[in-house]
Amino acid sequence: MAHIHKVNGQDYVIEIFEDHYLQGWKLEKELLSKKSKFQQVDVVKTKSLGNMLLNDNLVMTSDRDEFAYHEMMAHVPLFTHPDPKNVLIIGGGDGGTAREVLRHKSVASCVMVEIDEVVVEACKEFIPTTSNELDNSRLELLIDDGVKYVAETNRKFDVVLVDSTDPIGPGAPLFGEEFYKNVKRLLNPKGVVVSQAESGWYLKENQQSLLSVLKNQFKNIGLYNYSNITYPGGLWSFSWASDELHPIHDFNERRVAESGLDFKYYNSKLHTAAFCLPQFYYNSIGEYINI
Amino acid sequence: MAHIHKVNGQDYVIEIFEDHYLQGWKLEKELLSKKSKFQQVDVVKTKSLGNMLLNDNLVMTSDRDEFAYHEMMAHVPLFTHPDPKNVLIIGGGDGGTAREVLRHKSVASCVMVEIDEVVVEACKEFIPTTSNELDNSRLELLIDDGVKYVAETNRKFDVVLVDSTDPIGPGAPLFGEEFYKNVKRLLNPKGVVVSQAESGWYLKENQQSLLSVLKNQFKNIGLYNYSNITYPGGLWSFSWASDELHPIHDFNERRVAESGLDFKYYNSKLHTAAFCLPQFYYNSIGEYINI
Repeated sequence: MAHIHKVNGQDYVIEIFEDHYLQGWKLEKELLSKKSKFQQVDVVKTKSLGNMLLNDNLVMTSDRDEFAYHEMMAHVPLFTHPDPKNVLIIGGGDGGTAREVLRHKSVASCVMVEIDEVVVEACKEFIPTTSNELDNSRLELLIDDGVKYVAETNRKFDVVLVDSTDPIGPGAPLFGEEFYKNVKRLLNPKGVVVSQAESGWYLKENQQSLLSVLKNQFKNIGLYNYSNITYPGGLWSFSWASDELHPIHDFNERRVAESGLDFKYYNSKLHTAAFCLPQFYYNSIGEYINI
Repeated sequence: MAHIHKVNGQDYVIEIFEDHYLQGWKLEKELLSKKSKFQQVDVVKTKSLGNMLLNDNLVMTSDRDEFAYHEMMAHVPLFTHPDPKNVLIIGGGDGGTAREVLRHKSVASCVMVEIDEVVVEACKEFIPTTSNELDNSRLELLIDDGVKYVAETNRKFDVVLVDSTDPIGPGAPLFGEEFYKNVKRLLNPKGVVVSQAESGWYLKENQQSLLSVLKNQFKNIGLYNYSNITYPGGLWSFSWASDELHPIHDFNERRVAESGLDFKYYNSKLHTAAFCLPQFYYNSIGEYINI
């Protein structure tokens, strides 16, 4: 069950973060509450953010702000890679990242490996904003363990997107050395892996740990920021890791204009600006990055 | 009194934002609760953010993240203006903006006009992080109405910083036409006014209204973003308004390096990057800005 608390006589769905901070959104309706093999999955309707998905009582996405995360995860690597044909998404069960990937005409095939079918089904039923491309014929959706998939597959990819939860519960191995060794093996030479990289305000140890793992495998390491309104602190990060491709030097603004795509969050100026970090990030993770 | 609520048996100080969203920080101690002539002023000690100032139960600043707001408000205009000597701060009672302004050696005089003495005294006693330069000899602190001050003074300024609360309560006139007509009158030709400009996620009407007022008075209008962890949504904005000075074309990175100052948030790359906005901002306020 989601955490519902009454404040001033009104029901709020509450996320408690690390035992010192909480956020709440006025509840209109509980839509789903289901225990999967991996986690507690809830969908609620809120007054201001539309429908919201929570895994283990942590907000994963909402109708109102999902575009920020999904556009920034997908378009930064896909507009940098000169010809991304094969894309792998690990996690991403809500479908939002796949939706943005599939907007790129060059993408012939997108494989998405989500461990928890309950998340996919919940989003298909209640969050069409993110899940409306999950039946796209270029998408191959596998309900499977992403760690196992990257260890076993022989397919090669141009872009890998690690659209994971936090490094607790089912998401934990997706932050590990073994996982990224395998990701490297299945990337083409011009390949890039972009990963959900937590918060520089609140979770800098997670960022340091992830970047040190990436640094052991790849030449070009970076961190870029985006802001949404549901994750604690608002400002969150993606990591960039590649051997050849550079997200700024190899990026050509013209490709964005020529794509004809329109965006709610991403744009070509922000593509580069997102890699300019507040100073305290450099103090925290400067030693791991070279972008 | 601050809103204190028990959640899972723990006390949290709660901010309720626009009747649909709330945030809470685990409370360690209530330090001050005082009704001033203008507003309810509270200071609490929180578990994760240190001491926190709330006016009318809205978080104004905290030890942990105050630097983001204050550095970005002060250094973007002060490193763009070629020789800022006279600075005016309207509001800013916690002292953090004045502290950052006074780090610039070129600044001979900083006038700060704060309407609420209770805020100043509260921060002097409980938030030394922000208030520790309020006795600086280059600072002239006036407890007065900023709207009245700009209407009456004949002094001229290079940089005006409108460090206001939201456009409700005592902060409301600081978002109006009359106020900015007077600000324009007291700016030198190369002058610039930077103002607290609310949230693009949650308060776009406030941004539109402020920018349309500025556009009636000034030639160069812009919006730049910063992120803190206490304001709803995390990502908040400052407005830029000037007739001659341009925050990007007239900015010279070398001046930042030569200043010898160190920062926790601001840096010269971020100076420019902060003006690159998520696309939905351009859809909302693009017609008002030309930077």
